[in-house]
Amino acid sequence: MTTSATGMPFDDILSLIDQMAGPDEDARATVRARDAVLTKPAGSLGRLEDLAEWVAVWQRQAPPKVLRPLVAVFAGNHGVANQGVSAYPASVTQQMVENFAAGGAAVNQLCITNDLGLKVFDLALDFPTGDITREDAMDEMSCARTIAFGMEAIAGGTDLLCIGEMGIANTTIAAAIYAALFGGDAADWCGRGTGVDDEGLKRKVDAVEKALAFHDGNLDKPLEVLRRLGGREIAAMVGAILAARLQNIPVIVDGFVASSAAAVLYALDKAALDHCIFAHVSAESAHSRALDAMGVKALFDFGMRLGEGSGAALAAGIVKAAVQIHEGMATFEQASVDGPAEN
Amino acid sequence: MTTSATGMPFDDILSLIDQMAGPDEDARATVRARDAVLTKPAGSLGRLEDLAEWVAVWQRQAPPKVLRPLVAVFAGNHGVANQGVSAYPASVTQQMVENFAAGGAAVNQLCITNDLGLKVFDLALDFPTGDITREDAMDEMSCARTIAFGMEAIAGGTDLLCIGEMGIANTTIAAAIYAALFGGDAADWCGRGTGVDDEGLKRKVDAVEKALAFHDGNLDKPLEVLRRLGGREIAAMVGAILAARLQNIPVIVDGFVASSAAAVLYALDKAALDHCIFAHVSAESAHSRALDAMGVKALFDFGMRLGEGSGAALAAGIVKAAVQIHEGMATFEQASVDGPAEN
Repeated sequence: MTTSATGMPFDDILSLIDQMAGPDEDARATVRARDAVLTKPAGSLGRLEDLAEWVAVWQRQAPPKVLRPLVAVFAGNHGVANQGVSAYPASVTQQMVENFAAGGAAVNQLCITNDLGLKVFDLALDFPTGDITREDAMDEMSCARTIAFGMEAIAGGTDLLCIGEMGIANTTIAAAIYAALFGGDAADWCGRGTGVDDEGLKRKVDAVEKALAFHDGNLDKPLEVLRRLGGREIAAMVGAILAARLQNIPVIVDGFVASSAAAVLYALDKAALDHCIFAHVSAESAHSRALDAMGVKALFDFGMRLGEGSGAALAAGIVKAAVQIHEGMATFEQASVDGPAEN
Repeated sequence: MTTSATGMPFDDILSLIDQMAGPDEDARATVRARDAVLTKPAGSLGRLEDLAEWVAVWQRQAPPKVLRPLVAVFAGNHGVANQGVSAYPASVTQQMVENFAAGGAAVNQLCITNDLGLKVFDLALDFPTGDITREDAMDEMSCARTIAFGMEAIAGGTDLLCIGEMGIANTTIAAAIYAALFGGDAADWCGRGTGVDDEGLKRKVDAVEKALAFHDGNLDKPLEVLRRLGGREIAAMVGAILAARLQNIPVIVDGFVASSAAAVLYALDKAALDHCIFAHVSAESAHSRALDAMGVKALFDFGMRLGEGSGAALAAGIVKAAVQIHEGMATFEQASVDGPAEN
């Protein structure tokens, strides 16, 4: 990443946000015109019709195509893990990255079932970010470079991007980000993550409260929130979601932690997530609060709370089905099926 | 179908219901033991974990396998269509059967995306059942034979059966069945189906009221409800769901109309649907009422109301994912991933 003319790395990010295009209304109109003559009652496929339209609008093409769907999983480690906020030791982040590589994780199985590509990006796992209860997570250059690194996630090409993450202690990080961006108490945003007990949950709430107090007065700008409170995987997801928008790639956001990256972009520009859908409502208790704060409705609620892109990868199968329906169905005329009797 | 020793065709059906086995608790225990050591926090895959267990319990094997999933679509025509209860002419049933055969319908696309087999069973489409507002839909022998025909749906072999239907006017039929089985007014069970206007909805409610009045006093037995009010595709779905239970095949029930076949079995025996899941809450307004009456919770709500097994075929992709996760994931030991820090 080169620095901008101003010398401030975040200015480059902000200028990219200014370059985001709006929806392609021509693609929308073309999809709607075709949908209206497919052999089914109008509107009878509900959200599947919306999904096909959404893919077309943000791919800027009709019919929409999903030929190279990709799950991008970003992994990071966090200084705050030392505060005893997770049920698992920090070593698990690296071990799970190896499990992804070996094909043994849940997301690998979802990629098999739904025929999705998988790329895992580990972000300096040996060098956790600063402990947010008493220091900045990252400096500005490091944060901006990590955002830029995340933008490379789509460099190999994809037409549907699923965003996920892995990082012991990162529900604590996400809780701090949500509290800074959307307000409320630390406890409002803290859940049991991978499964902490009551004591662990108390340590988690304490850590978020300490972090909010330590950074108090410096959390008005969303990228500052990201830099001070966020982990590297969050910064990289911010970059990936943004790059996808600039390259006309629709994005499926996974659960509680991935949505915190989306929230940073939302706080920068309320239209920044228009190319995104949210796969599911996580069982992590504050996720529905976060979705409400962004004014979005997730596709399903299966009580999942694994992360690693699992909800997004499951949703990708549904999006693929929606696109296949739109492209593959016959029209009333092609199939010689009578329309409504009133016509 | 041969008649039973008593000479009453329904007795054969009732004796099959008595033969239904309960869940395989050994398979359940084996699945739970494996799930507990897979590389994820306990319970973090929510409903996907439940689905893998459900498949195993009713396949009576662990791990569960989904190698030959099948969508069975049953098509029938209905005398009550002459009462102007549908937005579409009755000719569309046959035309859509041809569309299924040609690969042009929504369910064909879902079968492509989720790699499902598809079989379509058309049930004497040239001979609609009797108009339920003034006569029985079927006589007992015809109804029993149609149930038996439906039982053949699984004859070619499958390990996961999706149940769907096609039949102009059959949301009226389903509404009448629900009202007879579960009580309430005709209007409680009537929605807009394929998209009738206010006048059409009024005709639909009138037809169901007339049917309930005509058959009043003869609707205490569920199979009599089916015979007098039900269409052939409903009877065949009753047979398919029952046969699947006897052959250890889990069933995914589609929407409003398919659920009315399930409701007949539920009314006969509250345990008769234990091997079934309900794919989705249909946008047909009374479906959630029907699901409540059977005490079941559907997997998702995407505002779909197409029928033809579309919701079940979409759900099959999710069930396949759940089974792949259960079988394909590495254990903590295999992947050398540390367990919870408290351990």
